[in-house]
Amino acid sequence: MTTEELVKQIHLKKSFLCIGLDTDLEKIPAHLLKEEDPIFAFNKAIIDATQHLCVAYKPNTAFYEAYGIKGWKALEKTIKYLNANYPDIFTIADAKRGDIGNTATRYAKAFFEDLEFDAITVAPYMGKDSVEPFLAFADKHTILLALTSNEGAFDYQTKMVDGTALYKEVLKISQTYANSKNLMYVVGATKAEYLTGIRAIVPNSFLLVPGVGAQGGSLEEVCRYGMNQQVGVLINSSRGIIYAAAEKNFAEAAAENAKKIQVKMKKELAKKN
Amino acid sequence: MTTEELVKQIHLKKSFLCIGLDTDLEKIPAHLLKEEDPIFAFNKAIIDATQHLCVAYKPNTAFYEAYGIKGWKALEKTIKYLNANYPDIFTIADAKRGDIGNTATRYAKAFFEDLEFDAITVAPYMGKDSVEPFLAFADKHTILLALTSNEGAFDYQTKMVDGTALYKEVLKISQTYANSKNLMYVVGATKAEYLTGIRAIVPNSFLLVPGVGAQGGSLEEVCRYGMNQQVGVLINSSRGIIYAAAEKNFAEAAAENAKKIQVKMKKELAKKN
Repeated sequence: MTTEELVKQIHLKKSFLCIGLDTDLEKIPAHLLKEEDPIFAFNKAIIDATQHLCVAYKPNTAFYEAYGIKGWKALEKTIKYLNANYPDIFTIADAKRGDIGNTATRYAKAFFEDLEFDAITVAPYMGKDSVEPFLAFADKHTILLALTSNEGAFDYQTKMVDGTALYKEVLKISQTYANSKNLMYVVGATKAEYLTGIRAIVPNSFLLVPGVGAQGGSLEEVCRYGMNQQVGVLINSSRGIIYAAAEKNFAEAAAENAKKIQVKMKKELAKKN
Repeated sequence: MTTEELVKQIHLKKSFLCIGLDTDLEKIPAHLLKEEDPIFAFNKAIIDATQHLCVAYKPNTAFYEAYGIKGWKALEKTIKYLNANYPDIFTIADAKRGDIGNTATRYAKAFFEDLEFDAITVAPYMGKDSVEPFLAFADKHTILLALTSNEGAFDYQTKMVDGTALYKEVLKISQTYANSKNLMYVVGATKAEYLTGIRAIVPNSFLLVPGVGAQGGSLEEVCRYGMNQQVGVLINSSRGIIYAAAEKNFAEAAAENAKKIQVKMKKELAKKN
């Protein structure tokens, strides 16, 4: 999917919500455990109930790998279901991969070609030749970790490198990579001070923002300081939506929570126009 | 496996060789493609032919993920085969994972408990709460990327942070993490200047060193500047061993190349004693 198509979908649905499919057998409704593939059954129900309220889904691969082959089958079924039934949805493999050239190409093929995800999250530590193999795929998107929303972000990401924070170096240096137009960034920042600095370096890139809602970030602040002319932000919510209820009505409850966010997003989009 | 057991194996076998199982269907001998599971057939033959010459195997997960479920099955079969037949071998999942707390725990369970690997490689960028969930597993080892051997290492890893190179910051800060005794480090450095500096910070940790052989690093230099009282180094070779020949004799050819390295290692161990 091209960035233009993603922006079009955002305006059509009046939403820039990404729903994280961090599906955990210990948290899904008990009645689903009788299904042949409980993970897929849960995902399918969540997707069918929420797909009109969001523009993207983001399964975190750890949750699937944790169940071995059974988990990988569920991931494959989920992405195939999305692509077959909702081709206008932007799909992100939250895999945070990062390895040298030859090996990075392997990961890129696995996620972009075989599984047909639109995007993958990638870790920056190994530098250029670990990122460029992903960027080589046309109309596929590489979402580089810049500033994450966890406590450990302060271990290295915010440390000063030649007078600039490391995460800003990641933004700057990655913009010099071949096909950098295919880059987006994970920015777990909801504070104005960070977002303004980030937008000064990457005015045109899409930002994937976790940490709004459950983790206390403000949607309004992200929009005020993070949006650009092309919208330029996807806001992710995982647990706050998919685990809204653990009863038979879990999918409706998820849709209700997604709707609450989408209504706020509609207002923010209207403000910008 | 404990570090003490690993050291014992090194002295028994007079080898600190790790063989990288980066198994690629395009590179393995053509006659294996007729097998039901060519990847596993290749790995099994390589393992049986070389297990007396090395102390560790390291499958890079990208090569398995690239083949989807078929690849994961081959990875599962490989690690099960190793654990069932050669329990004294140290097994490393070269996965380079890195994600926040809850998700990191998922990865740790997948690789340590379900697949029963002894060790996993982990990326440091997300900091403490992305690494500590791995360190919580007793007698399991977390091999943190410090200085990698690729060109992109110079993008961030060697940049100066408060007067120290970032990779040294990673060594220093990670030593303050809970259960840091379970840490090892990927150090793709074969130059004396780097190894001396690294040993000044982590005198007791095991270093996993790629880049010797094919990539031009010197085994002698790594031993001279990188070894400690407990040996403290594992040297990895992948392509140089497993793709030594593409004919029917591929496993024997792999063993020959492994033997050449093991003979050198025996000499280095003798020097140290």
